[in-house]
Amino acid sequence: MSLQADFYFDYGSPTSYLAWVQLPGIVERTGVTIHYKPILLGGVLKAAGNASPMDVPAKRNWMARDMASFARRYGVPFRLNPLFPINTLPLMRGAIHAQREGFLVPYSDAMFRAMWVDARDMSNPAVIAEVLAGAGIDAARLMAGAQEPGIKEALKAETEAAVQRGLFGAPVLFVGDEMFFGQDRLPYAEEQLRSLGRSAP
Amino acid sequence: MSLQADFYFDYGSPTSYLAWVQLPGIVERTGVTIHYKPILLGGVLKAAGNASPMDVPAKRNWMARDMASFARRYGVPFRLNPLFPINTLPLMRGAIHAQREGFLVPYSDAMFRAMWVDARDMSNPAVIAEVLAGAGIDAARLMAGAQEPGIKEALKAETEAAVQRGLFGAPVLFVGDEMFFGQDRLPYAEEQLRSLGRSAP
Repeated sequence: MSLQADFYFDYGSPTSYLAWVQLPGIVERTGVTIHYKPILLGGVLKAAGNASPMDVPAKRNWMARDMASFARRYGVPFRLNPLFPINTLPLMRGAIHAQREGFLVPYSDAMFRAMWVDARDMSNPAVIAEVLAGAGIDAARLMAGAQEPGIKEALKAETEAAVQRGLFGAPVLFVGDEMFFGQDRLPYAEEQLRSLGRSAP
Repeated sequence: MSLQADFYFDYGSPTSYLAWVQLPGIVERTGVTIHYKPILLGGVLKAAGNASPMDVPAKRNWMARDMASFARRYGVPFRLNPLFPINTLPLMRGAIHAQREGFLVPYSDAMFRAMWVDARDMSNPAVIAEVLAGAGIDAARLMAGAQEPGIKEALKAETEAAVQRGLFGAPVLFVGDEMFFGQDRLPYAEEQLRSLGRSAP
């Protein structure tokens, strides 16, 4: 039986970006198949009665340094977008569309980079279009697709299912029934995957 | 120059316990001198505008499993006290007294164990007295000492100074100006201490 994991994320979450950049290495080292679950973090926070840690000024200051430190550890660029928080509803609907069309990974690379490396204003449709074009994605088609009722409904359903599964924030990697919350827990998720890999027939 | 670090904690915090149990190993491996800073976590949370992560039901569920997993990793017993949260004001005042009298470490061992291993009702003075007696500590003297105005004032001052330094929760280990928040950041604090140790003359 091959290893499986479910990854829940929102482009508006800087720690989701720091998790995203770790995934290729984890896949390479464990052979896990990752199922991507775009969700609306704002919806999860609201349903779980949680608040963004970035809402507490002293915690935000500490998180900014903590995230920069992890970015150095992972060897990836990182800039805390000064426009945070941004409403990511159109971007996450776009993720569902991109997933159905088979280009979720390059779309996500572009979204995460625009948000947390280039610190673009991703609440601005013109900027979104520019970022998509830069990634070789048909912006008009994506943005029209993201408006389809079936896409809107699918994002809502995925977000509600995430809350049912125990999410109160993002990112999360589920390995079986075990929930690894936070980009800083991915090394432990990888340990768990290695352990499962060793015990598999 | 010898390595120094400041450790901020409250016995009412289960992650402070999980940090506490890691300290002897870190001291042994790095030679760091730890300065203990008992604080009132409730005061820090209030001043920083923060809430306990345990207040969000889904987060509390996850944290319970997360903390149990770290306890197994550290090889220490752990039980999430069902009476959490407990008002730790008398216990933390007792810590200041114990520190002045030179027995903070055995006092803290007894407090953390009663709270997070034996899951005692540490809001009950009779239970506190029993736990202290079991640790060979003169309970009457400790509890009288904890009521002295100078002790009360010292805990308040230490808590306010912690907020000024950027605390929004506990545990925290400061290495120089670098703040390591959370028991899960101690391995990174240890890395930093090793790095400083190597670069010292």
